Amino acid sequence: MPESPLRTVRPVATVDEAVEVLREDGGRVTKARRAILDVLFEVRDPLSVEQIARRAAPELDVPSTYRNLEHLETVGLVRHVHFGHGPGLYELVSDHERWYALCESCGAVTAFSPADLDPVRVTIDERIGYQVRFAHFPLVGLCRACQAPDQA
Amino acid sequence: MPESPLRTVRPVATVDEAVEVLREDGGRVTKARRAILDVLFEVRDPLSVEQIARRAAPELDVPSTYRNLEHLETVGLVRHVHFGHGPGLYELVSDHERWYALCESCGAVTAFSPADLDPVRVTIDERIGYQVRFAHFPLVGLCRACQAPDQA
Repeated sequence: MPESPLRTVRPVATVDEAVEVLREDGGRVTKARRAILDVLFEVRDPLSVEQIARRAAPELDVPSTYRNLEHLETVGLVRHVHFGHGPGLYELVSDHERWYALCESCGAVTAFSPADLDPVRVTIDERIGYQVRFAHFPLVGLCRACQAPDQA
Repeated sequence: MPESPLRTVRPVATVDEAVEVLREDGGRVTKARRAILDVLFEVRDPLSVEQIARRAAPELDVPSTYRNLEHLETVGLVRHVHFGHGPGLYELVSDHERWYALCESCGAVTAFSPADLDPVRVTIDERIGYQVRFAHFPLVGLCRACQAPDQA
């Protein structure tokens, strides 16, 4: 089962703070890791391994990007999200956690704050006994634009 | 984007009814397709392509099981569900639709009725504008046994 969402999270505000976390953790602060952090801090949206590698070229190829992202995830600086059938997309762990909903008709992605669904989480826990989160596996459904008129 | 959950669904009660649907649709009723239907009617739980192929052997190997499942899904007799990082698992489309929750700590799966979460679906639609369903991509969270005592 996926482990990342249950790991310790180390939210940081800058690349320098991230580098500090890497050092504290005893890991090396390589050019590759710094290049990945630069990309994630610049974009601030979930990106695929390929997208990150392309932006960080020529420092990085896809396999080394993947390995370094795994390290950054283990340390708690980065997390990945699965949008439907697609591969995991990576983003910074940030102070204000974002969750996502995915439209399975048009592929639209909507970000929201966990607090937006506080009452939903309480009801789900009461009814089926699960503490849910939509960080690692987003909510999947139909966005408003794709809902049939008679169901809207 | 995944198409299956938005396709027409053809719930049937017996293998013979399923065969009738295949005929009406103009598809061939092969030994392989009947063997897959037999397995799904016998087990009534989501199964991987490999599990179905093994149970239907020697009629079927994995690639032909996969192709035939895709056909049965197109016709509306079968659907697949993604449990976390795992491959899609296949099951019969049934009259009383089942949805699932997956524990991302221990891997436990809980089935529930869509009606159990009716109020949740209304609230999610009101708050973030999504009509959600947990058939194709289950709810992911922590089951009661895995919830930390201070969070229970």
